Amino acid sequence: MPNTLEPVSLTVEMPTIMAYARLTDDYNPIHVDRDFAEKTEMKGIIAHGTMSLNLIWQSLRKTLGTAAMKDARLDIRFVRPVREDDVVTGGGVEKEGEPGTYEVWVRNQKDEPVITGTATVQP
Amino acid sequence: MPNTLEPVSLTVEMPTIMAYARLTDDYNPIHVDRDFAEKTEMKGIIAHGTMSLNLIWQSLRKTLGTAAMKDARLDIRFVRPVREDDVVTGGGVEKEGEPGTYEVWVRNQKDEPVITGTATVQP
Repeated sequence: MPNTLEPVSLTVEMPTIMAYARLTDDYNPIHVDRDFAEKTEMKGIIAHGTMSLNLIWQSLRKTLGTAAMKDARLDIRFVRPVREDDVVTGGGVEKEGEPGTYEVWVRNQKDEPVITGTATVQP
Repeated sequence: MPNTLEPVSLTVEMPTIMAYARLTDDYNPIHVDRDFAEKTEMKGIIAHGTMSLNLIWQSLRKTLGTAAMKDARLDIRFVRPVREDDVVTGGGVEKEGEPGTYEVWVRNQKDEPVITGTATVQP
């Protein structure tokens, strides 16, 4: 089993955010209303958290296969918002001496962590 | 602060799965190729895990507001696949004596757990 996960990236453009809103029926104005979003503490549009989280999932599955994902466990923290036009990348590395346990992350184009945590899959 | 989260539901139809595949660029055949999927251990199409997870996120935010979601932490387990035409509902309840910590879940139309775990948000 490889011990570094294959990274998976996504460019978070406004049409992608709108499509995600439609799909999940989640039209919170912080995601879809620029005027509203700019007046909040966030100072602009942010992407749905689970849109970025999907990159960790994809990275795990791309590297380890679907079977490994059965009963997968994620323990993650959303540490920084993802903004319009950010490029986010999900990846991870297996923990030394802990087969099936991965330190996982999503990072933005400035290499800042967006999501950090641990994933446990079938070893 | 309310101690029961407002439930959020989603009907997982094939067009939704296809749209999610396009959006996340995740065309794993277990999600999009019925012939392939039926020959696997899963015995049919399953939805992307993070599509269901989004319901927990939405349920938290709908009930508690966007501000509560800053530095949110999720510790969750994917316990059962979500299949085509399943109706899944995300929700949760605050843990007794632990403000900001919620037992969270996604359940299918048979009331079987699909995702279970804990979410920690700003109390």
